[in-house]
Amino acid sequence: MCSGDDRNCPQFDLHCAQLLEDLDAERRSFLKSAFVATGGAAALTAGGLVGPAVAQTAAARQARPNHHYLPATADTVHWGYFSKLLKPQIEVDSGDYVTIEALTHHANDDAERMVKGDPGAESVYLWTKEKKGVNRRGAGPIDGKLLGRGAGEGLGVHICTGPVYVRGAEPGDILELRIMDVKPRASANPKYSGKAFGSNAAAWWGFHYKDLITEPKQREVITIYEIDATGQRNWAQAVYNFQWTPQTDPFGVVHKTIDYPGVPVDHATIKENHGILKNVRIPIRPHFGVIGVAPKEADIVDSIPPGYFGGNMDNWRIGKGATMYYPVAVPGALLSVGDPHASQGDSELCGTAIECSLTGTFQVILHKKASLAGTSLAQLDYPMLETQDEWVLHGFSYANYLAELGDTAQKTIYEKSSVDLALRDAFRKMRAFLMSTKGLTEDEAISLMSVAVDFGVTQVVDGNWGVHAIIKKNIFAGAEA
Amino acid sequence: MCSGDDRNCPQFDLHCAQLLEDLDAERRSFLKSAFVATGGAAALTAGGLVGPAVAQTAAARQARPNHHYLPATADTVHWGYFSKLLKPQIEVDSGDYVTIEALTHHANDDAERMVKGDPGAESVYLWTKEKKGVNRRGAGPIDGKLLGRGAGEGLGVHICTGPVYVRGAEPGDILELRIMDVKPRASANPKYSGKAFGSNAAAWWGFHYKDLITEPKQREVITIYEIDATGQRNWAQAVYNFQWTPQTDPFGVVHKTIDYPGVPVDHATIKENHGILKNVRIPIRPHFGVIGVAPKEADIVDSIPPGYFGGNMDNWRIGKGATMYYPVAVPGALLSVGDPHASQGDSELCGTAIECSLTGTFQVILHKKASLAGTSLAQLDYPMLETQDEWVLHGFSYANYLAELGDTAQKTIYEKSSVDLALRDAFRKMRAFLMSTKGLTEDEAISLMSVAVDFGVTQVVDGNWGVHAIIKKNIFAGAEA
Repeated sequence: MCSGDDRNCPQFDLHCAQLLEDLDAERRSFLKSAFVATGGAAALTAGGLVGPAVAQTAAARQARPNHHYLPATADTVHWGYFSKLLKPQIEVDSGDYVTIEALTHHANDDAERMVKGDPGAESVYLWTKEKKGVNRRGAGPIDGKLLGRGAGEGLGVHICTGPVYVRGAEPGDILELRIMDVKPRASANPKYSGKAFGSNAAAWWGFHYKDLITEPKQREVITIYEIDATGQRNWAQAVYNFQWTPQTDPFGVVHKTIDYPGVPVDHATIKENHGILKNVRIPIRPHFGVIGVAPKEADIVDSIPPGYFGGNMDNWRIGKGATMYYPVAVPGALLSVGDPHASQGDSELCGTAIECSLTGTFQVILHKKASLAGTSLAQLDYPMLETQDEWVLHGFSYANYLAELGDTAQKTIYEKSSVDLALRDAFRKMRAFLMSTKGLTEDEAISLMSVAVDFGVTQVVDGNWGVHAIIKKNIFAGAEA
Repeated sequence: MCSGDDRNCPQFDLHCAQLLEDLDAERRSFLKSAFVATGGAAALTAGGLVGPAVAQTAAARQARPNHHYLPATADTVHWGYFSKLLKPQIEVDSGDYVTIEALTHHANDDAERMVKGDPGAESVYLWTKEKKGVNRRGAGPIDGKLLGRGAGEGLGVHICTGPVYVRGAEPGDILELRIMDVKPRASANPKYSGKAFGSNAAAWWGFHYKDLITEPKQREVITIYEIDATGQRNWAQAVYNFQWTPQTDPFGVVHKTIDYPGVPVDHATIKENHGILKNVRIPIRPHFGVIGVAPKEADIVDSIPPGYFGGNMDNWRIGKGATMYYPVAVPGALLSVGDPHASQGDSELCGTAIECSLTGTFQVILHKKASLAGTSLAQLDYPMLETQDEWVLHGFSYANYLAELGDTAQKTIYEKSSVDLALRDAFRKMRAFLMSTKGLTEDEAISLMSVAVDFGVTQVVDGNWGVHAIIKKNIFAGAEA
């Protein structure tokens, strides 16, 4: 039986209605917990985060929310870039639920396991001598003459499903995205029934790459991981790895390194090493590496460097139960989802996570600019994460690299990042959050940050490097009613 | 009733014997859990961490271990430096327990609460026109003529209790330190009965200092926190804060900034702001910012920059239940403990934690070099932390700055640190750990690091900045027997 998320199920409509009921109940319970955790009524009256969301939800519920479904196909994805010019795939109202399929851009590392038999993935990955299912794969020139690798070459890699147009969203508003559910996408190959797979590429853009100690140095290595698609097992395990060898794509271009997304790996040219990472169990942390709204600064924006609009944040905490807040930059917000991960560690050291197709169910809540005054969302100009117990603020080497680095920003960003800069941005954002949301003085905020906020390395492989700052909600649980 | 850690208790000997029994039972339970968590028998036979410790303990237990007590007094502390030339305060055997009092070097920020009536603290902090209880307070010139601030001026700040001489310890051995218990030091002033206090200094060496947004900029601010000394309450709360004003020490030197440790703050010259951080509850994380063995590279070493010998690591995970491993660099190891903290966040952003005197009870286990072959401790040349569930490896901007930065290392280290460098060191150490301890290939280790190891910012305020890498033990729980 499908859970209301399989459009091919004959009883899809019935199951979908059931899902909506379930999500509604789950959401009520979630809100209640968050309410208690943040100090109950005090949080509401003191301009806490929960306040406006509750109000907005209530308004949205005057009309019964809809549940939309956005599959991933060659027609519904954009590959390797964000753009405010993209035609929306669906339109939703604030309060609506939407289930979105996200495909990993590393599926062709092992097409047998991650593409074969899957109509959506096959349509996206279609690539013959004559035709590509999705021609543009990045934010570079469409003619592929820059470096000769192909359309959109060299900039951007993620398969993004969307965009979703949020009715009424305008620049200055805040888009809240509640992640209700995240499920692995099962292999459609009967040979691998009940299993899902992901690929980890230790690639040339990894932090480790120029620092290898065994021969041959500067190699790239792909590791294929298996995940239980039924959800019975909460860990992943390695299946095999292989060293990248030059791969000739169907158009005849040779890729000596992993320099273009979706190149089919010819397994006759590589050597699979099985029996690796024996008995090692990777705890799964299913999440979306990329969730973002369209930035306003350029017509077409590389999907790799994250920024104020979210995008490729690669924080493994952005999974089930989490809520994200994004500043809307263009009409309709234009939300897209991609880069699904089964697991990742803080830093994403070697360049990628366990890149594994996932399907997420989200609730979309729009906070209009006029409703933000006096709430913590009023000054929010970056993507913020709320979990059951924590607030997580995201610092980058450049908070808005598109605006800060001028006309060559999309190139320059790859040359200028450092963890130090990202830590400084995270510090400034946390200070602003504590001063505006909690009404602290600068001195109170700074002392609190030193004794109770944890700063971690989100990623050092996405052009614009990230540091996140975590503060526990229960720190404020002592607030007077 | 004392818990075997109050020498003034009339029944100290009886309670001390009881403590020894309790610790023994607790340790057995701890070892058993660690044994299970790491895969039981497999961990032992595969050269797991637990193996040698168990063996060593058994050997040590042939003789009943002793329980030593090292109070903090003007005679038992060294202030602001490590030195291989120091006379040991006590000698212990492998397997022995030792309770060590550690005093915060910020106690004179509020002497009424943190010094008054406490004979140990009063002897250390004694400073009249004629005399200082501890004259040298750093690794600078004893005559204080460098900058005119006082003996040992400008380099090193921590009051360190010790050193403890471990019988039989030689360079090349590994010293294991099990933190059995950590307790706050209650205020000895009857006015504050049952309470302990700590000081947080947002100081000129903080990451925030040149980046303040409210006036007057570049101010230094002290926040005094209250901790429940009875252990009933697991959170700290702010009492008041004040801006640092020029303080004249008893020798007549004026300290415009916090530039010399232990300067008594004259509360007639400052303005206490009460009612700050109202209703904010800081979760306590009692730990020792400084635990280290004596380095071999120099006769007197600044206590601030951490290194291969441990020292000022400022990782809040080094608390009760944790085990540390240090490479022994000089005969007897010469272990010292200081810089006690009630709580700290990852990064220690503003320069300090909640600096609060604590008393710790430790078990010391010596692993002889000859016994290390085939175990993960064989190649250990940095301080490593083991908790119940995790291994935590410590990277620094410079793994051994004393050796790497030449004759001027103790000055240069303050000019050259970055989080990026510390992350690289942590990456290299984790790779080596996975390859040697778990027998992984470099490719396996690198993939695992990207999908299952979390890198966090330990501190960015101690000259030699730190990044820690955390790996969960249960990742290896699938190991075959």
